[in-house]
Amino acid sequence: MPNEDLRSLICDLARSFYDLGWVSGTGGGICIRDEDRVVVAPSGVQKERMRPEQMFTLALDGSIASRPDDPSLRPSECTSLFLKAIHLRNAGAVIHSHSIHAMAATLLFENEFSISHLEMIKGIQGMGYHDTLVVPIIENTAHECDLAEALEEAILRYPATSAVLVRRHGVYVWGADWVRAKTHAECYEYLFRAAIEMRRLGIPTRFEGA
Amino acid sequence: MPNEDLRSLICDLARSFYDLGWVSGTGGGICIRDEDRVVVAPSGVQKERMRPEQMFTLALDGSIASRPDDPSLRPSECTSLFLKAIHLRNAGAVIHSHSIHAMAATLLFENEFSISHLEMIKGIQGMGYHDTLVVPIIENTAHECDLAEALEEAILRYPATSAVLVRRHGVYVWGADWVRAKTHAECYEYLFRAAIEMRRLGIPTRFEGA
Amino acid sequence: MPNEDLRSLICDLARSFYDLGWVSGTGGGICIRDEDRVVVAPSGVQKERMRPEQMFTLALDGSIASRPDDPSLRPSECTSLFLKAIHLRNAGAVIHSHSIHAMAATLLFENEFSISHLEMIKGIQGMGYHDTLVVPIIENTAHECDLAEALEEAILRYPATSAVLVRRHGVYVWGADWVRAKTHAECYEYLFRAAIEMRRLGIPTRFEGA
Amino acid sequence: MPNEDLRSLICDLARSFYDLGWVSGTGGGICIRDEDRVVVAPSGVQKERMRPEQMFTLALDGSIASRPDDPSLRPSECTSLFLKAIHLRNAGAVIHSHSIHAMAATLLFENEFSISHLEMIKGIQGMGYHDTLVVPIIENTAHECDLAEALEEAILRYPATSAVLVRRHGVYVWGADWVRAKTHAECYEYLFRAAIEMRRLGIPTRFEGA
Repeated sequence: MPNEDLRSLICDLARSFYDLGWVSGTGGGICIRDEDRVVVAPSGVQKERMRPEQMFTLALDGSIASRPDDPSLRPSECTSLFLKAIHLRNAGAVIHSHSIHAMAATLLFENEFSISHLEMIKGIQGMGYHDTLVVPIIENTAHECDLAEALEEAILRYPATSAVLVRRHGVYVWGADWVRAKTHAECYEYLFRAAIEMRRLGIPTRFEGA
Repeated sequence: MPNEDLRSLICDLARSFYDLGWVSGTGGGICIRDEDRVVVAPSGVQKERMRPEQMFTLALDGSIASRPDDPSLRPSECTSLFLKAIHLRNAGAVIHSHSIHAMAATLLFENEFSISHLEMIKGIQGMGYHDTLVVPIIENTAHECDLAEALEEAILRYPATSAVLVRRHGVYVWGADWVRAKTHAECYEYLFRAAIEMRRLGIPTRFEGA
Repeated sequence: MPNEDLRSLICDLARSFYDLGWVSGTGGGICIRDEDRVVVAPSGVQKERMRPEQMFTLALDGSIASRPDDPSLRPSECTSLFLKAIHLRNAGAVIHSHSIHAMAATLLFENEFSISHLEMIKGIQGMGYHDTLVVPIIENTAHECDLAEALEEAILRYPATSAVLVRRHGVYVWGADWVRAKTHAECYEYLFRAAIEMRRLGIPTRFEGA
Repeated sequence: MPNEDLRSLICDLARSFYDLGWVSGTGGGICIRDEDRVVVAPSGVQKERMRPEQMFTLALDGSIASRPDDPSLRPSECTSLFLKAIHLRNAGAVIHSHSIHAMAATLLFENEFSISHLEMIKGIQGMGYHDTLVVPIIENTAHECDLAEALEEAILRYPATSAVLVRRHGVYVWGADWVRAKTHAECYEYLFRAAIEMRRLGIPTRFEGA
């Protein structure tokens, strides 16, 4: 897909994520990789009103390959975190959501979110219905960029995960391409919300047998 | 309605179901029957971004009558389940929803979901306000196609039902045509959500008299 | 406003009410009065897909002044109830909502819904912030038309009300014109939802003083 | 930005706020300042159907600089409150939301809403992740304009706040321009909703240490 279209796609997806409540208050974001380039939105902009000409294109080392004309724009603060998933997992796209369900899930679990025996677990790469889905939770930091080290550690310690939760903050989700990253993000969102619902109804999130 | 229009209609409905939270993460789906043909979406695609040229047309025995040009596409994994409702109930359309309310309802009931004395029950074919609406719940399986036998059994054991819930998964709903299938799906969705709300408020879902 | 425009307006409003969850499963509806005529939607149609040419125009005695070409269509089953509010309260429009919040509110109160000291109460004609808003609740019946007598009684017994709740069913709301009926419907919806939220949080819906 | 565009922008934003549930029942509103002028919507109109030609332009002392042709329209009842934030905080835009989460938050706290250690706190000007965000709560009055004095007091007593909650009513939020006011409004909305969710799950809103 040419860069032009990727830029429009990011704007489209960001608008859709805004409607889902994932990127309100200029929080959250998305990047999409195109071979040795990564297209990423600027920092602190309104996610539902972004325009293609506001996008940055980065090299894989994070250096800026092309930038928007508006000199006040800087690349998303999530960039160093996005690059971790790209380098360590060969991600084709990374989504950062501030969904209230992702955030609340980190209040209900200690070091790992875990859930089993829900059909939507199948939507996560490599996972089946009977598997226990585990998502590591890292502690939040004062500055987004300071999360990069903890994110890297969690990715290395949980080689099967496609997401890392950040305590009292949200979640980073990735996939082999933007479609799979988005599918993952929708499945995790459902599972976080389901876990909260189950907790409220007094039902354990890990199935203990019939 | 010509097949062309049915294909567009499925795309429209899928987008609307995505907005309702029924088919996120590429889960869920819909098929519409047109005499001896069934139009069905491909497996694993983003439901809110489907295009008419991606649709399959099947014969009633499930064999492919026409297929999209894209060779990577396969018919929805729900197909064998859709065909059960078509053959056993003469359904004109079948909707499979992953709604979190349908899923959560299966956590609150053993073998049957049941609710009575709600106006929306009237929206289900053959049911009145004072009737107790019963929806059988079948156990989930590792693979969607393995559900077909249990679905058939449930349909035969509950001749009045227009829906079957799947534990920790979602619901299959049908009707004589796509309008009635969609109306059913909306009514069941409302009733599943109402049951969860009533449970939280400590109100029994089966009315026991004034 | 000419009848043509009223028909389009009803379609627009019904689509908006569908998005709000007030008229799913073909339940609920709206009528708008234009001097000695009442424009009303047909019964049992999908509210988010209605077209102006499907509308009925009635005289104030309920007789059909003009009807859609499609012979299978009948006027909304709510018609006799709509006419009660028109005759007894000189309503310019009546909205019938199946909102789950309206329905659930009838499970939390005996004969009257009541709430006080919420800003949104001011949106109801004749009510101030410190007033206690009371909405009578009538019992549901097997057939919608059988509600007409109980609705009339409630309207007469509660001369200040602009709405009547129907147990385990929904609510009828009216106003002097369609704008005020819609404003009322939005305020009542908010107040029903607030009452459920307050009940869950253990806060009384009638303020008992500081 | 020319006044023409500001008028359209207010209509756009109001429609979006309606979809978010902030301005239903004609409640809530927004004003945007343009140097020595303030564009404000009329009182009591449907927020999702406003048109640019219905807007008022005021001088900073609240006098009307230009008004809509329709003689029945009056400036928003929030005007005197909007002007407080403009004069005392040099606000470039003020948003008044009737969000049910803002309203419910005032039922859970006495004189101040407070929350700490949530990422979305960073979205509020001058606040970091480890800070405790405090929002003063003033008591509601029978008439909106009577709130002005209490709002002024709260603004003066809480020099760091960008919002004031009104008991059983909603919230006033501002920012240096319309983008920052809207970002603030989204962050506060998230935080009010998070507080309610946390209260339900038995989690304190002020973090007391690991």
